[in-house]
Amino acid sequence: MAFEKYFPEILRELLKNIEKIPTYGERGASRLVYNFLKLPKEERLRIANLMMKASESIITCSECGIVSDMDPCRICSDEGRNRRYICVVEESSDAYAIEKLERYKGVYHVLWGRISPLEGISPEDLNIPKLLERVEKNQAKEVILATNPNVEGEATANYLYKLLKRKFPNLTISRVSFGLSFGGFIEFTDSLSLEKSIENRKKL
Amino acid sequence: MAFEKYFPEILRELLKNIEKIPTYGERGASRLVYNFLKLPKEERLRIANLMMKASESIITCSECGIVSDMDPCRICSDEGRNRRYICVVEESSDAYAIEKLERYKGVYHVLWGRISPLEGISPEDLNIPKLLERVEKNQAKEVILATNPNVEGEATANYLYKLLKRKFPNLTISRVSFGLSFGGFIEFTDSLSLEKSIENRKKL
Repeated sequence: MAFEKYFPEILRELLKNIEKIPTYGERGASRLVYNFLKLPKEERLRIANLMMKASESIITCSECGIVSDMDPCRICSDEGRNRRYICVVEESSDAYAIEKLERYKGVYHVLWGRISPLEGISPEDLNIPKLLERVEKNQAKEVILATNPNVEGEATANYLYKLLKRKFPNLTISRVSFGLSFGGFIEFTDSLSLEKSIENRKKL
Repeated sequence: MAFEKYFPEILRELLKNIEKIPTYGERGASRLVYNFLKLPKEERLRIANLMMKASESIITCSECGIVSDMDPCRICSDEGRNRRYICVVEESSDAYAIEKLERYKGVYHVLWGRISPLEGISPEDLNIPKLLERVEKNQAKEVILATNPNVEGEATANYLYKLLKRKFPNLTISRVSFGLSFGGFIEFTDSLSLEKSIENRKKL
């Protein structure tokens, strides 16, 4: 093939492997590789090195499922965190986003995804059995459902609500609230969020 | 800081460095890192290894500016390619996309970008002096302007057209054509492309 003759083997290999990163595919791989190659050599080597190190050292916490460099993770192994509050998120990045607020003092539970018939993801594919086990073991008082504010996230929250309510009738189950975004405009807020923000208004 | 206590150091370092990849930033870095970590360990190590190898071996061709594992690149060093035809592209990935068609037998010239006042990129930031040098040295017959079909790409093509016409009055300068996309619908084609496709209609 003529193309193969002109295209560097290492780039072909790199693109082929990066395509396998979830959500990447051909376009994502191309965007990553060609932009990565624009960096100066020492920065490229630093990134490749850090990816190597992260690949070696990052594991998922056997307790909550978050990506971490320790097992149990730094949150689960902290005696100061209240294990009776469990915040359920789709991905580790969601948990760390909440963690960045430095307000929440409970623990997390990462589902590793969301119910999504379109992507062929059903409840059995998610980290749910371990959640039920932890609710029981931790004698949880409250489970906060912090899945994403979209169709899949809502479906996942509804599914978990029903499942948890059936198994643990006394458990408090809550859902993060919907409403206006700070810095936004009422005029340009989508109708669902605007409706929710009025419905869930707070007395001053 | 409490957040730092809980967030793995290696992830912070990795995110910080990946943010520097052009077009990435905080969101792109987060998307890459957390999706990368979903791969099995051996696939992660393979990718990190390939990025290391690519970082070591990929250079930009001192002739045409394409990313390659050889200098001059595999295209520029092939005696069978016609150096009198120079196809000007914004990025290496554009050249390789054309190369994949296995039709074009000339050489390329990569600008490493496009004129974009919004991004603060002016003609002086692009690989243009080398293009003028090559047009002269190769005794070019035709320069094909294959910058992207958008405002920045058009501006870049216009700029190069004027510059080249002034310096090389006998040079043929062409622009890739606009029109319908295969597999698309006339009904849903944007008006500019539709107009161009009629204006540039071919006699059958």
